[in-house]
Amino acid sequence: MTDFAGYAIEDLEEGMEASFSKTISDADIVAYAGISGDTNPVHLDEAYASATRFGGRIAHGMLSASLISAVIGTRLPGPGAIYMSQSLRFRAPVKPGDVVTATARVSALDREKRRATIACAAHVGETLVIDGEALVMVPGRAEKGDKAR
Amino acid sequence: MTDFAGYAIEDLEEGMEASFSKTISDADIVAYAGISGDTNPVHLDEAYASATRFGGRIAHGMLSASLISAVIGTRLPGPGAIYMSQSLRFRAPVKPGDVVTATARVSALDREKRRATIACAAHVGETLVIDGEALVMVPGRAEKGDKAR
Amino acid sequence: MTDFAGYAIEDLEEGMEASFSKTISDADIVAYAGISGDTNPVHLDEAYASATRFGGRIAHGMLSASLISAVIGTRLPGPGAIYMSQSLRFRAPVKPGDVVTATARVSALDREKRRATIACAAHVGETLVIDGEALVMVPGRAEKGDKAR
Amino acid sequence: MTDFAGYAIEDLEEGMEASFSKTISDADIVAYAGISGDTNPVHLDEAYASATRFGGRIAHGMLSASLISAVIGTRLPGPGAIYMSQSLRFRAPVKPGDVVTATARVSALDREKRRATIACAAHVGETLVIDGEALVMVPGRAEKGDKAR
Repeated sequence: MTDFAGYAIEDLEEGMEASFSKTISDADIVAYAGISGDTNPVHLDEAYASATRFGGRIAHGMLSASLISAVIGTRLPGPGAIYMSQSLRFRAPVKPGDVVTATARVSALDREKRRATIACAAHVGETLVIDGEALVMVPGRAEKGDKAR
Repeated sequence: MTDFAGYAIEDLEEGMEASFSKTISDADIVAYAGISGDTNPVHLDEAYASATRFGGRIAHGMLSASLISAVIGTRLPGPGAIYMSQSLRFRAPVKPGDVVTATARVSALDREKRRATIACAAHVGETLVIDGEALVMVPGRAEKGDKAR
Repeated sequence: MTDFAGYAIEDLEEGMEASFSKTISDADIVAYAGISGDTNPVHLDEAYASATRFGGRIAHGMLSASLISAVIGTRLPGPGAIYMSQSLRFRAPVKPGDVVTATARVSALDREKRRATIACAAHVGETLVIDGEALVMVPGRAEKGDKAR
Repeated sequence: MTDFAGYAIEDLEEGMEASFSKTISDADIVAYAGISGDTNPVHLDEAYASATRFGGRIAHGMLSASLISAVIGTRLPGPGAIYMSQSLRFRAPVKPGDVVTATARVSALDREKRRATIACAAHVGETLVIDGEALVMVPGRAEKGDKAR
């Protein structure tokens, strides 16, 4: 798919799915601390974190959630869609070095209002680490035609 | 000031509030694109973005939302709390250079279950850009005592 | 907790202390090399570093020292203070994965000139890795009132 | 200079000088906040910073100082030297986008003890922003011969 311009509302179907995977490295955690300002020691201080229930440092929950937003922003529906809302339940911790796979699936469509509901999840291996739901406004073909590049 | 180790559930009161402000710079947007994998052109490509309804590049919604997570993770309730869920409604776009102020306010407390509901918001000046709600599990004083550093 | 706006000179007392701890990861070392331009192989090249007296890669001394500046800039005295000088003695190496705890203690106060002397240290476990002294100019309450946010 | 292995104490002369220049970008400031944990709003929050005496965001002083450590670690004396101490006086602020030039000059030599005193400075254009002094232990030729790569 070259220069993917995102789906139009007419081209989405319930059940369509896309995913994105990425290792969450120490480098991501340090950079995310700087971007967000979240310097909670459970993310940055191994001595502190090893005394918590997690037994060691964990990634920021919203850092793992950022991969969900990447699927929505780049793949399903992709560019052109407007992010209206996102709910997130943090189910299990993500450790530095874990590979997180974020998945988005169209769970409901309102073509008249041009809205799609997206069921979202993030897994590390078989373990569900986040689930939630997003609502996006998706342009129609006519509108996309005007703005496609 | 001794190290802020986060609030115990006994020390939280409804109405307590904290905030954190940060300029969302181009550097944040580029770094967040790399961390998250969200390379949607509305964030990175001025030519594309200027033809959208936003009239120019905007920050990732989840990047602005990361400041909400920073308030929760570092100030209210701060270290020791477990992030259980977060809902977010994206109300208005954030542009590169905007100063985002994220605010968290304790809106409900369940001391028995050690849970706090946090009303969350992010503003640029007077404009509400995000609102939502977080649920956190907050340790009791006894438990914090065990783990204090 | 309202936003911590930093101490006014009237509110500082000799002996007040604050600290900040963080794991110094490989990611920190690589990122610091990029920011600073300090690509000395003792920090980046395990083959080279293992032949030195350190027996392996070590963190940049000024990277560990950055945690001292974090304590001063965020906790004691915190926002509003002006960093005038810093001396640092590098006492022992810090290895990737070490948890560094930086500590700042008010060792002298000149309320008339609004200056505080801060005794600084960084430890890995019981080992002193850096000590030194900072001089900061600290705003008075009246001045802080003008600038509080 | 290919694969520069650093000066031996015998090869240093008083008055030798080296420098390193780098733009301090917003990206450096955000990344340094994450590495150091220093989220002081004078570095990250334009609204806050514009109300301070600086009139806008400034770089962390220790971030500019990191360029001094880069000169010492990579050029004069370069790899093989041991950083013993560093003093820093912060003379003027550095703003995002400023080009900082760090300079190191051998100001005293103790060949018997293998120690060099380095006069350090950082400038933005003609403005002195930092000065200070470093003390380094420098290997002899014989020792370097053993460890050269």
